[in-house]
Amino acid sequence: MSSFKILVTNDDGMAAPGLRALVEVAKELGEVIVVAPNSPQSGQGHAITISDPLRLFSVDAFEGVEAYECSGTPVDCVKLAKHVILKDREIDLCVSGINHGSNASINIIYSGTLSAAMEASLEGMTSIGFSLLDYSWDADFGPAKPFIRQIMEHVLENGLLKCQLLNVNIPKLPAEEIKGVKVCRQADARWQENFVEATDPRGQKYYWLTGEFKNDDLGQDTDIWALENGYISVVPSGHDLTNYEAIPPMKVLEQITLPQKI
Amino acid sequence: MSSFKILVTNDDGMAAPGLRALVEVAKELGEVIVVAPNSPQSGQGHAITISDPLRLFSVDAFEGVEAYECSGTPVDCVKLAKHVILKDREIDLCVSGINHGSNASINIIYSGTLSAAMEASLEGMTSIGFSLLDYSWDADFGPAKPFIRQIMEHVLENGLLKCQLLNVNIPKLPAEEIKGVKVCRQADARWQENFVEATDPRGQKYYWLTGEFKNDDLGQDTDIWALENGYISVVPSGHDLTNYEAIPPMKVLEQITLPQKI
Repeated sequence: MSSFKILVTNDDGMAAPGLRALVEVAKELGEVIVVAPNSPQSGQGHAITISDPLRLFSVDAFEGVEAYECSGTPVDCVKLAKHVILKDREIDLCVSGINHGSNASINIIYSGTLSAAMEASLEGMTSIGFSLLDYSWDADFGPAKPFIRQIMEHVLENGLLKCQLLNVNIPKLPAEEIKGVKVCRQADARWQENFVEATDPRGQKYYWLTGEFKNDDLGQDTDIWALENGYISVVPSGHDLTNYEAIPPMKVLEQITLPQKI
Repeated sequence: MSSFKILVTNDDGMAAPGLRALVEVAKELGEVIVVAPNSPQSGQGHAITISDPLRLFSVDAFEGVEAYECSGTPVDCVKLAKHVILKDREIDLCVSGINHGSNASINIIYSGTLSAAMEASLEGMTSIGFSLLDYSWDADFGPAKPFIRQIMEHVLENGLLKCQLLNVNIPKLPAEEIKGVKVCRQADARWQENFVEATDPRGQKYYWLTGEFKNDDLGQDTDIWALENGYISVVPSGHDLTNYEAIPPMKVLEQITLPQKI
């Protein structure tokens, strides 16, 4: 057994079968510490808790694994893991997931799973977010596990070079139909929202957010293309949202002056 | 009076003086519609509300302005504005803020103000997030207003070309000390967290998130450099988190195969 230390987190909470599957893989590779939210946090994006105190509870969720539930968001979990639980204990890898459902393309912006991985990378940890394209609670994580193990092993042994994190999505397919891994870019797709309107017993309207994923990005180098063609998608990701191409044309704004200075 | 239609939102809620300042500027340029959260949403990042219904309340907050409070996050506000309030009414510009405090550099990831602007851009709107580097509730937005008006006018007249949104931060300085506008990239800076531990009356520990902003990015083309040198920073931003430089070296992961396929 190597001496790798692996931090595992997610956004679906401690009871999620996807977390259990990821802990099982991580335990084969080293010592595991789990810090997960104590309530479902899907769609929490990069939210942090600044106006409420945070709670941490030591729990006995997985045999032989140090585990904590946290009252906050996935990003709070990672911050507490680093600064309250781990402190001077160095970890070799942070993995988040396995999410029940896709985090490909623009979902990286909304996803608690990926925001936890991104926060880990901001904290200087090598990190990977894993998602399976199956939203059901009893999704079958079996076909994904050998691939996840190999990706984790490769990253534990070789690091991520200058890349901050990987966004890994796995198609909902039997193992023998998964064609392999494609390293790709984030597709330029988005959600087309649709609100369902209803009326409460007091006669007040309320709305449920729902929507449909729309991909007009026809590139064959994208995560959506890879997934639609039977591949696991791996998007090397970061946290720089600058649109570099737009800097030169937008320099025109530097001509702005205060009215009294004209 | 032109016929510009401007959607105004924020993350500090309807009562925030920063929102009032932005509405005042927007009213000089066209017809204004306000959709703001009904509770403070700082640090909400790109969170969306998927497990609770959302509420919208028509409010009389600003003279002659159509305004709504929303029970959700800043991103929810923009989605509801687009799909429930505006529907087929086209708007020319969405502005978010003026935030009480910096959203420069990595703060774009955590910020409700900027996430609202980013969501507007995902919905196809031209959008700008404005922030003043003063966290106090009674911050003086006066010196910023003429600059904000000129930036909004420029964007209303010329659009943002292929750029999705602008992240505009304004230093806390008297008008005569603001040197002008710099169009720049997002500095590669981050927060160094520090949790304050306390004990509740039942003897249980809890934690407050706090921290210090650390910038080790010495580039003179960054938003942090611009702000520290008396300039308003304008970062053309997007929503692609791909780390393109890391794609070629990470292609090594494509050699992974399922154990039974070896």
